[in-house]
Amino acid sequence: MTKQMALGAFLYPTGHHAAAWRHPEAQADAGINFKHYAEVAQAAEAAKFDMLFLADSAGARGEDWGALARFSTHYVAQFEPLTLLGALAAVTERIGLVATASTTYNEPYTLARKFASIDHISGGRAGWNLVTSGNEGEAYNFGRDRHPPHDERYRRATEFLAVTEGLWDSWEDDAFVRDKDSGVFFDPDKVYSLDHRGEYFGVRGPLNIPRSPQGWPVLVQAGSSEAGKALAGASAEVVFTAQQTLADAQAFYRDVKARAVAAGRSPDDVKIMPGIFPVVGRTEAEAQAKFEELQNLIHPDVALSILEHRLGIPLRHLPLDGPLPTDIPVTNAAQSRQVLLLELAQREGLSILQLGLRVAGARGHWQVIGTPEQIVDKMEERFLNEGADGFNVMPPYLPGGLTDFIELVLPELRRRGLFRTEYEGRTLREHLGLKRPARHHKHTKAIDAAAEHTAAKTSAAA
Amino acid sequence: MTKQMALGAFLYPTGHHAAAWRHPEAQADAGINFKHYAEVAQAAEAAKFDMLFLADSAGARGEDWGALARFSTHYVAQFEPLTLLGALAAVTERIGLVATASTTYNEPYTLARKFASIDHISGGRAGWNLVTSGNEGEAYNFGRDRHPPHDERYRRATEFLAVTEGLWDSWEDDAFVRDKDSGVFFDPDKVYSLDHRGEYFGVRGPLNIPRSPQGWPVLVQAGSSEAGKALAGASAEVVFTAQQTLADAQAFYRDVKARAVAAGRSPDDVKIMPGIFPVVGRTEAEAQAKFEELQNLIHPDVALSILEHRLGIPLRHLPLDGPLPTDIPVTNAAQSRQVLLLELAQREGLSILQLGLRVAGARGHWQVIGTPEQIVDKMEERFLNEGADGFNVMPPYLPGGLTDFIELVLPELRRRGLFRTEYEGRTLREHLGLKRPARHHKHTKAIDAAAEHTAAKTSAAA
Repeated sequence: MTKQMALGAFLYPTGHHAAAWRHPEAQADAGINFKHYAEVAQAAEAAKFDMLFLADSAGARGEDWGALARFSTHYVAQFEPLTLLGALAAVTERIGLVATASTTYNEPYTLARKFASIDHISGGRAGWNLVTSGNEGEAYNFGRDRHPPHDERYRRATEFLAVTEGLWDSWEDDAFVRDKDSGVFFDPDKVYSLDHRGEYFGVRGPLNIPRSPQGWPVLVQAGSSEAGKALAGASAEVVFTAQQTLADAQAFYRDVKARAVAAGRSPDDVKIMPGIFPVVGRTEAEAQAKFEELQNLIHPDVALSILEHRLGIPLRHLPLDGPLPTDIPVTNAAQSRQVLLLELAQREGLSILQLGLRVAGARGHWQVIGTPEQIVDKMEERFLNEGADGFNVMPPYLPGGLTDFIELVLPELRRRGLFRTEYEGRTLREHLGLKRPARHHKHTKAIDAAAEHTAAKTSAAA
Repeated sequence: MTKQMALGAFLYPTGHHAAAWRHPEAQADAGINFKHYAEVAQAAEAAKFDMLFLADSAGARGEDWGALARFSTHYVAQFEPLTLLGALAAVTERIGLVATASTTYNEPYTLARKFASIDHISGGRAGWNLVTSGNEGEAYNFGRDRHPPHDERYRRATEFLAVTEGLWDSWEDDAFVRDKDSGVFFDPDKVYSLDHRGEYFGVRGPLNIPRSPQGWPVLVQAGSSEAGKALAGASAEVVFTAQQTLADAQAFYRDVKARAVAAGRSPDDVKIMPGIFPVVGRTEAEAQAKFEELQNLIHPDVALSILEHRLGIPLRHLPLDGPLPTDIPVTNAAQSRQVLLLELAQREGLSILQLGLRVAGARGHWQVIGTPEQIVDKMEERFLNEGADGFNVMPPYLPGGLTDFIELVLPELRRRGLFRTEYEGRTLREHLGLKRPARHHKHTKAIDAAAEHTAAKTSAAA
């Protein structure tokens, strides 16, 4: 059988285009409309997508409330993703369920528990997109005066992940015997404490939920900075990324796979899934018209505001039809995205407004406008040439942009044998061809740790 | 129309009896069996319960893993309640959905967001049972060397609640206009920052989700200590409590209602719902036999272990058929429950083992064994005499214990006009007859706060 690609459905509430909510077909209140999410998730499942994907931000993205008032996409009016993921687990049966959660503003015990819980609720379909938060404003909602610097966030993320992995390994897979006759609910020799004490966290464990169907939820990662790629190579099983050209996509792909190998993993242990923002029409002209319809709905202030936020600098004092300044400083926000944008502007000679409109359209991701054949040609090229193991599909608007992809692009992918016609597995790991991790953390048995604790107390008292 | 009582279905995974999981009909893996929870929730909804209720503990309850190995009920193998609540929201339509979350080991921004999210997903059915954590072991999972003292926990809880209320009031109810023609998604004059800086928390806000259908989720509280009752009187809308006798129930009821009035609220703004552990049979003998069947499944070690945990002191060095020691110290755990148990043992002259078996049975709650008429007589007596506005029903085992209550007790309650035959409202507030809170927090408009911030930066730079 031909190798097949993985596909994710990246569900921004109204779609990924900045003006998506203004599209005549868009569900403008999508961010808090559960029926909308359920329908879109069920459509993606009927189409056999590997997973759906929810982004997150623990606070609005941006400070300018006058500008934010024109957005639906800047986390001003959306469900919290883990509660939403729980709800979607109940109305789907096969599709993987991936949500974003930040290691900077969460506690590992809480997050490990929630993702294990969703993995149990869904029968093994959970995935965690680990982020360190690219949005500086989150800090102010969590008692901090500033967002921690990039390297500190990644240090914390690395420790956070080690703790959650340890917690997911608290119980052996067969610890719960639940023998009604003997009255033994679990085998006390098969539960382990963690007793972690590190730079950022102190966590005793064990986690108070059995090891989940997938062992660990699938670990997803999306940072493309040096620190992000290091973490991805060492630990991630799926990597989302924004890559504009085949050459860039290949460089990124080979880089992360090499890091995985250097970390003692197989290249197949990590799946590289760049984002794709597809605008599809039965003809090229129809596709282009669909795109123009959306672009025409973008207010220039919105384009500028998105670009300012992406670059982390003010731009509205500059001529909008002129070029970007050449001396843009590297910020503490998402460094990799910043560099990509600067390269894009230079490569295509875009003005500030043109770059703003481009970013507002596909939000810095790989934008492909055309017929199903044209789009599949480009996907296939990357897929067959070490540019991608699959794609995270970013529908321009919902549900129409997803429906177009399902009805027009998927048949062409299937005609070429590049995408499944039916699920073969039950879990997200099975869909993606990822191994179920064996318990490998070596903790003290909880029953021994407790006995030691008691012995120490007794001896201190004597 | 006669005044009618409120009913909650308090869903411990296998039921409330300590040996419930060993019952022949019990679903032993209930704690991680979503189908089980969905069926039980749907049965409670079909029976028109006001709400279902999920308890929580961020860690196993207890340290003795040898003893814990015999329990299903000590938070060793259960779904995390907020992800479960999200899932249950998707498979129910009318019943209220209440989950417990601790103010000691969470952040207010995160929790406010999750409960608002569940209120949106469920169309206005969410409730939050605010606890400060009675389980000392949770501390070790969150980087603490000890569980904070009782008064400190309640100080933090009070500030936590004020912050969450403020965050739920971030947006005016009609802030989101979503006008596709003009491109205005929300009215920037209708969003408010919080700018809270207190003893425990610094939270800028606004919350990044619209004001939810109920305005605020229903606020539930269960602490019966002095500090717990103070918080309940000032803020709670539903109070769960364990009361053994009519006189105690009345004293508690009048106390909390008086505190509500002293805080400027109406007595109807807070509903008192004691727990009831009903064992129902068509005859008294049948009920008693059902209870004995369960009691006989309790291992003495389990009874002792539960009692030790409840009282916070070791007991296994004492003769099990002798009385409790008279000099039990007040601990930092759940003080009110401790006092209730000591009074119960004294009143009925129970030995350590007898008290242990009693606690293991109904877990310190009001245990009523008998025919439907006998049980309804007792419920009616409390309901009509300022002992209760309703009850939190604690089925001894699931699903049988809930089915018995629905099939045998509810018809008798309805015959006397004491419980609804159909939902009249859509939201949990409507079921309970609670007002939807008007926005009353006076924050700075976010757009003004941001402008001030910018002005300050500009003037500092000049």
